[in-house]
Amino acid sequence: MDDKSRTMGRASELNFINVFTASGFWAERQALVSEAVIPYQWKALNDEIPGAEPSHAIENLRIAAGISSGEFHGFKFQDSDVAKWIEAASYSLSIHPDPDLSRLVEGAIELIGQAQEPDGYIQSYYQVAAPGKRWSDLEWGHELYCGGHLIEAAVAHHLATGSRKFLDIMLRYVDCVDAAFGPEEGKRRGYDGHPEIELALFRLYRITHDERHLRLAEYFIDERGHSPSYFDAEREKLGAGARDRHFELDYFQAHLPLRDQHTAEGHAVRAMYLYSAAADYCREEGDVGLLGALKDLWDSVVEKRMYVTGGIGSQAYAERFSIDYDLPPDRAYAETCASIGLVLWAWRMLLVDPDSRYADVLERALYNGVLAGMSADGTRFFYVNPLEARPEVAKFRRDQEHVKTRRVEWFGCACCPPNIARLVASIGGYVYSSDAASIWVHNYIVGEVAFAGENGCLRISQSTEYPWEGRVLLKIESGADNRALRLRIPEWSASSFFASLNGTAVLSPRIERGYLVFERDWKTGDRVELELDMSVRFLYARPELADAAGRVAVQRGPLIFCAEEADNGKNLSSYAVDLAQSPTVCRVKLPTIGDSLRVELAAQRVLGDNDRRLYRSDKPRYEDCRLSLLPYFQWANRSEGEMRVWLNAL
Amino acid sequence: MDDKSRTMGRASELNFINVFTASGFWAERQALVSEAVIPYQWKALNDEIPGAEPSHAIENLRIAAGISSGEFHGFKFQDSDVAKWIEAASYSLSIHPDPDLSRLVEGAIELIGQAQEPDGYIQSYYQVAAPGKRWSDLEWGHELYCGGHLIEAAVAHHLATGSRKFLDIMLRYVDCVDAAFGPEEGKRRGYDGHPEIELALFRLYRITHDERHLRLAEYFIDERGHSPSYFDAEREKLGAGARDRHFELDYFQAHLPLRDQHTAEGHAVRAMYLYSAAADYCREEGDVGLLGALKDLWDSVVEKRMYVTGGIGSQAYAERFSIDYDLPPDRAYAETCASIGLVLWAWRMLLVDPDSRYADVLERALYNGVLAGMSADGTRFFYVNPLEARPEVAKFRRDQEHVKTRRVEWFGCACCPPNIARLVASIGGYVYSSDAASIWVHNYIVGEVAFAGENGCLRISQSTEYPWEGRVLLKIESGADNRALRLRIPEWSASSFFASLNGTAVLSPRIERGYLVFERDWKTGDRVELELDMSVRFLYARPELADAAGRVAVQRGPLIFCAEEADNGKNLSSYAVDLAQSPTVCRVKLPTIGDSLRVELAAQRVLGDNDRRLYRSDKPRYEDCRLSLLPYFQWANRSEGEMRVWLNAL
Repeated sequence: MDDKSRTMGRASELNFINVFTASGFWAERQALVSEAVIPYQWKALNDEIPGAEPSHAIENLRIAAGISSGEFHGFKFQDSDVAKWIEAASYSLSIHPDPDLSRLVEGAIELIGQAQEPDGYIQSYYQVAAPGKRWSDLEWGHELYCGGHLIEAAVAHHLATGSRKFLDIMLRYVDCVDAAFGPEEGKRRGYDGHPEIELALFRLYRITHDERHLRLAEYFIDERGHSPSYFDAEREKLGAGARDRHFELDYFQAHLPLRDQHTAEGHAVRAMYLYSAAADYCREEGDVGLLGALKDLWDSVVEKRMYVTGGIGSQAYAERFSIDYDLPPDRAYAETCASIGLVLWAWRMLLVDPDSRYADVLERALYNGVLAGMSADGTRFFYVNPLEARPEVAKFRRDQEHVKTRRVEWFGCACCPPNIARLVASIGGYVYSSDAASIWVHNYIVGEVAFAGENGCLRISQSTEYPWEGRVLLKIESGADNRALRLRIPEWSASSFFASLNGTAVLSPRIERGYLVFERDWKTGDRVELELDMSVRFLYARPELADAAGRVAVQRGPLIFCAEEADNGKNLSSYAVDLAQSPTVCRVKLPTIGDSLRVELAAQRVLGDNDRRLYRSDKPRYEDCRLSLLPYFQWANRSEGEMRVWLNAL
Repeated sequence: MDDKSRTMGRASELNFINVFTASGFWAERQALVSEAVIPYQWKALNDEIPGAEPSHAIENLRIAAGISSGEFHGFKFQDSDVAKWIEAASYSLSIHPDPDLSRLVEGAIELIGQAQEPDGYIQSYYQVAAPGKRWSDLEWGHELYCGGHLIEAAVAHHLATGSRKFLDIMLRYVDCVDAAFGPEEGKRRGYDGHPEIELALFRLYRITHDERHLRLAEYFIDERGHSPSYFDAEREKLGAGARDRHFELDYFQAHLPLRDQHTAEGHAVRAMYLYSAAADYCREEGDVGLLGALKDLWDSVVEKRMYVTGGIGSQAYAERFSIDYDLPPDRAYAETCASIGLVLWAWRMLLVDPDSRYADVLERALYNGVLAGMSADGTRFFYVNPLEARPEVAKFRRDQEHVKTRRVEWFGCACCPPNIARLVASIGGYVYSSDAASIWVHNYIVGEVAFAGENGCLRISQSTEYPWEGRVLLKIESGADNRALRLRIPEWSASSFFASLNGTAVLSPRIERGYLVFERDWKTGDRVELELDMSVRFLYARPELADAAGRVAVQRGPLIFCAEEADNGKNLSSYAVDLAQSPTVCRVKLPTIGDSLRVELAAQRVLGDNDRRLYRSDKPRYEDCRLSLLPYFQWANRSEGEMRVWLNAL
């Protein structure tokens, strides 16, 4: 295994295995993923969960391998669920060694190897259900998408275990892809309708340093979106009819070369995976033109098309971006996978262009849009993450039928559950980065980390009760290093934080691009303390966001809060928050949720009366009351009921 | 022709031809209907409007009549468009005699007669496209629905012209229906999936006094909704699959006998037409049980499921009622025909149970939800009437694709345009009612009316600039009568109005069920003057209506107002109305609209700035400004832009 902190582009990331997270918020969630989510999802992939939508994913591979017989079931991309599960399980094994899980993983890898064609091709759908049709429908076939997830899983497995078995399987697969695609004479000049293999190939390249892997990744990005469209030609050959207006080329990220794009369009997850790969491209090649396009796209997403929870994709139909400022809270799609994709992209932007604005969004998506996707006990999931829910309405209305007010056990299209699992299990990889001059601390997560440097290995420990509290202690456990240490000051704490070095307050903090900079010859025992401002804050949206007009969202630290019926009764819209009064905050343990924070706001509530008229000119009467909030990511873990993020204000 | 003021039930209505509307608001609209709408719609029915969706309705009948050949096109209920056009044209002929129009009407009637089968059956779809399948799919076939509209047209034509030609055609049709349907052995115990024939048969009965017509109407109402369902049995015979959840029996008003219903469910227009017929039933039979159900349904609609514009049916999919208080302004369906149906129902409730609450709702629907359906020039129409519109959003979002921000020329499903035409042209029939003891003035519409009484004919003239102004003068032009005169005091003026009799102020007005009562031996020259309170009023919704929380609607007289981009710029949600400051009102003439009212409100508007963050904790800064409103029914007659009824309030 090669040096994981080697600088390949501007900054280098640490692989998940370099960061050991023993306790605290994320360790608890990683334990949940290891103990509950991964075993549960294995059962789901094997159709052993009564009442859940069947997956058939393992069975499809068994049929492809000739071990079982029968028909393919599920989506064409069913293999990717297995891939993401192996990826998550590999991360888990690096944290919590578990021989039983290890055997399951090895078995799944063995199965994939058995299913693989002699020339390296793998995808159970085309092998079982459409033999001979390989690469004929790149627009919808998801072959390279599945391949990408399998490559990511193989890289994770190799890093976690040192084994080359899965990696070698996927290297044969990449050879097969490389032989089929590319600008060279006789190859297909196509690309997949769902980006994914691009970022996977960059990950692979960082292991193999095989230039062919880099070139193939770059080919897929460069080729995409040119006119006349590969997909149009393919459709004509297939005799497919006209596309629905929401499934035009932009849905597939194929309407324009990425370099010519300036607004975020189409399917949100597809967009995130492509943008992530493009950021990798910039990191490898220092491509200024492409980075400029990515920055425009970043602004388009973050300044105009992102929910306050970090949810993206505000239209359910085609799971896609809508137009600027169209962010209805009750019809949000805000797919869990899209927020995960935003984390992936933000992280890669951070590596190319270390600015806290990327990390701020990463954090917003991670602690809100992503974490809301999984129940407190790790066995139920949201695909869709609304910012306002009324169960009776969501159950009735056709235009809200995608909105669930209870997490469900599994999905026929089960991309989200294993995607959360792999992100949570690899969270250690999203904390630090470094280059020759600096070590960045992007996120506040308990753990120990080792940085290889000129003077040997610098070991740093981080302790914090983040996101519940704002105090962070970074301690040099051993080693020496003269690189600058850069700690992110989140945007919500930018004007108010306290820092000290070895007990001495930093009176004139030096902030560069959102990071507090310490320059020093670090030695064992050095302590940097940071106290972030965890005041409860009312957030206002830009006036163009019609659905938030006259309303506030509540944030404390990285957490967005919401009101639930369980605490406040029905009819949450009848509350109006008094912004002049100070909120109270207390840490609580809630049944079926565990650790939580209760924020209480002074409010007024419209008094009901016996007048049955729906509309009248008498001014409503109000009573003083309190409105109790909890973190958005913890909603829908108690009784089913109303939920609301944007609160009416007095 | 028989005595039109004969009291059949509790109160008697006047047919449209008894009220002559020479000038004022409604006369202008009737002139528009006669001069623009009816000729335009004739062209539409004959597919002579370039760019409009083709109707084929006349051609279908020509094919059925054997005059033309070709295939049936359009919906199964295409004949009903012709029927509603003849009905509207007949009303128009009674107001504005026009030999050219008369010839067109006679030609259309001739055509219907030629299309009629020897046994009386008429429906071009089944005759042309599905011969031999008559009555086999009552759930969806719309045969009796079309028949009902043809009967209504025949009654109107007979009353307007004295001709029996169309009436006789439809009497033969009714014989055919009577032979096919009923509780008797050998007849089908079915009913139509779209109520309409029921109310038509009551109208017919009031002309014919043929008990068979009354019994047939009553049979259709009594039979409907019993279990096991006729429609279920029919579906099984047709081999039709399971119904979509929004198209269950309640969609067809067939989930329960009407007497057992207490909440308004299903397709809003179907509901209105059935409830209207049931009110006729109560009027004929004094059915207390049925009337109780209707009153429950009234409360369900008016207190929980009606927009402030009198729009009903808040879900586009299946054009149906949703659940209580689910009235999203930007996804409203609020079909023009449903508001027309609400007018029809409210009117019939008023005749059975003269209480101003019915007339108040009739007025709300008429001046807002109905009138908004037609452009100021009478050539373009809305099917869907939202309470909030942003063109870019409505054009993009799949879940708002039913919302148009420009009226269109015609619809493939063209129920609404001729429905408005027939209502406007017959508006005179919705002003007065009478019984042996009272004459009611329900609506304030310029015109002259004659009441037959014991002492001969009492002629009353009404002059008013309503709805622009609140002053009404009723004058006894000739005759004498000792019945009480009852003038509706609208709910919005209940606590503040001024009345006088022959110039003497009424100091202790007697109000009964919302009507100001004058008892007197009326004689020629008597003058009753009423001055209603036309102050601008802010309306608040009940707290359960989440979408109106913290917002106000603006009403003046019967008119609901809205803000438009044309007057206020984009981004109407950034305005917050200052409720403490008095609005100003002025009468204006607007280009492309004509007479209008401008209401100006003091408001504050969020100031934009250069900070590009979508969410931030800095409180927005506001500037003082004015918000200019115009009547809701006049929206979308100028440049395409945003519109908003529910305004944010400070």
